[in-house]
Amino acid sequence: MLTVNAYAATSATEPLAPTTIERRDVGPHDVLIEIKYCGICHSDIHFVRGEWGPQTYPVVPGHEFAGIVTEVGSEVTKHAVGDRVGVGCMVNSCRECANCLKGEEQYCLKGNTLTYGAPDKDGTRTQGGYSTHVVVTEDFVVRIPDGLGLDEAAPLLCAGATTYSPLRHWGAGPGKKVAVIGLGGLGHLGVKLAHAMGAEVTVLSQSLKKMDDGLRLGADHYHATNDPATFEKLAGSFDVILNTVSGNVDRGAYMNLLALDGAFVTLGASSEPEISFPTFAVAANRRVFTYSLIAGIRETQEMLDFCAEYGIGAEIEVIPAEKINEAYERVLASDVRYRFVIDIASLA
Amino acid sequence: MLTVNAYAATSATEPLAPTTIERRDVGPHDVLIEIKYCGICHSDIHFVRGEWGPQTYPVVPGHEFAGIVTEVGSEVTKHAVGDRVGVGCMVNSCRECANCLKGEEQYCLKGNTLTYGAPDKDGTRTQGGYSTHVVVTEDFVVRIPDGLGLDEAAPLLCAGATTYSPLRHWGAGPGKKVAVIGLGGLGHLGVKLAHAMGAEVTVLSQSLKKMDDGLRLGADHYHATNDPATFEKLAGSFDVILNTVSGNVDRGAYMNLLALDGAFVTLGASSEPEISFPTFAVAANRRVFTYSLIAGIRETQEMLDFCAEYGIGAEIEVIPAEKINEAYERVLASDVRYRFVIDIASLA
Repeated sequence: MLTVNAYAATSATEPLAPTTIERRDVGPHDVLIEIKYCGICHSDIHFVRGEWGPQTYPVVPGHEFAGIVTEVGSEVTKHAVGDRVGVGCMVNSCRECANCLKGEEQYCLKGNTLTYGAPDKDGTRTQGGYSTHVVVTEDFVVRIPDGLGLDEAAPLLCAGATTYSPLRHWGAGPGKKVAVIGLGGLGHLGVKLAHAMGAEVTVLSQSLKKMDDGLRLGADHYHATNDPATFEKLAGSFDVILNTVSGNVDRGAYMNLLALDGAFVTLGASSEPEISFPTFAVAANRRVFTYSLIAGIRETQEMLDFCAEYGIGAEIEVIPAEKINEAYERVLASDVRYRFVIDIASLA
Repeated sequence: MLTVNAYAATSATEPLAPTTIERRDVGPHDVLIEIKYCGICHSDIHFVRGEWGPQTYPVVPGHEFAGIVTEVGSEVTKHAVGDRVGVGCMVNSCRECANCLKGEEQYCLKGNTLTYGAPDKDGTRTQGGYSTHVVVTEDFVVRIPDGLGLDEAAPLLCAGATTYSPLRHWGAGPGKKVAVIGLGGLGHLGVKLAHAMGAEVTVLSQSLKKMDDGLRLGADHYHATNDPATFEKLAGSFDVILNTVSGNVDRGAYMNLLALDGAFVTLGASSEPEISFPTFAVAANRRVFTYSLIAGIRETQEMLDFCAEYGIGAEIEVIPAEKINEAYERVLASDVRYRFVIDIASLA
């Protein structure tokens, strides 16, 4: 057992605070990672505050982190000491259901093991990346290619995977028009990735406040959704709409912007238990309403390799661990361009 | 102008009755068809009874009919006198929008011209196939291949196209599991077509009453949806679910039967203005919620050719025109296996 420094939530209402946690001994198929950078995802906040149901505290959040391998188990073949690696939202899955066998562990039918706050196979609870070290089974560790900084790579493990997967699945590429609703942690990577894939990219943001940024990141067009003319002008335009907004949106109005066979893809979990929209919004143009949850391990690696090839990292603001609580407030106020990343050296 | 015998609704509440209507002169691109058989579609009933909004009477329904070409316009190249032909739900479209140019006239962005009860390009209103003759522009007339009887072919023009198109679009074929909700006019053709495409076919019907029929038509499995065990046993099973039921169904329960990337496809128009279902039912397994409306002209021809190749016709009960009102009541009571077809000779 290894005792390591971490930052943890101790209840749904207290601020996160420094603590120590135990990491398991390195098993035959495990790697020990010295974490260098960990991104702050909006869902960390929902989770630790109990907004997705009651949790067992303490919870160490963090499911997008990058670091260096410092020890490997006797049977490990995929990673070696000194390798630059990352871990995303899952640290294990059943590995035998139909979905796992297809490499889509994010849809594991027996329930995959989330990186934090989840029961692990050994009976303990998983603790995430707001900590100096972690032990993870090698199959759920991916390589960070040379050329990507560990700091800018960290958010790719969640936000990058979450936007890359549906863009590939729904065929973003040359000749396709992709709209991204919301220019935040997910959205700014959706824009960069869709642009790199060759699609024509439009940002649909509440206002034109971040327009310069959006165009710099690769958007071809930028429209304000607080202007009703946007919804008239763009009706029937898009092949894919990535909805990166976690709250409620006027689904009917957005779906009406889809061309024939266009897909309205909401990313990640929603706190709304029930979905509704006008029948006509989906029946017209044979539109598709669907969700997409992160990505499988194979596709996460593919995404990182793609990002290295196209020079895509997250736009980040690096903070020391003692600023985590302040960062949470700024995330809730959309006051970050575009992802906070914790410098884990500040925890050492 | 040609005056022809027909059966028409004169109000939302009166029974249909014999009448005469005018057909336009055969223009350069028109064909005159002597109608032999016309199917009765459930939507005929909704339409003439004003359940989809107020109508302009008289309305001659009928949007799945087959007959013989008896005259062609001077510029017609696709059809000749004596040809066996059919007409489905559309008799024209704008022909220049993005969807029409893709051959998906059913999604014409300017609104296609429905076969009955719709404003036609010449300012008259279209009248359908419960009549002895019709004049239609050649591009919206399809060939009935030899080997298909005109009677069994008539319902293919609507019900066959409506089931064939989504089965193709969502990849029904060997290795795929297709479920069909409802074994009626649409459903029985969905079963025959999916089976001929090589898919493993399951009928989900309220009870096991029509099970023998379902298996005879090509289903591999047949389950009663009034048995809650059905929904447990089949969870996560299907790649495609065709929902042929026009009323409300428990969408969440059915979507939960979809495997990874499975599509829940509702066919045709719904009278419900708003759709709702549990978020998790669609977010799990990256499921797709979508609709499908009939088929384009090119695909309708492809469907007919496929049906001829595989010996697929509708299962029909042929009736004379004077039994139309009785047939309507029996359709509403699901008392037909599986489509009424009017013998238009009875109108002569």
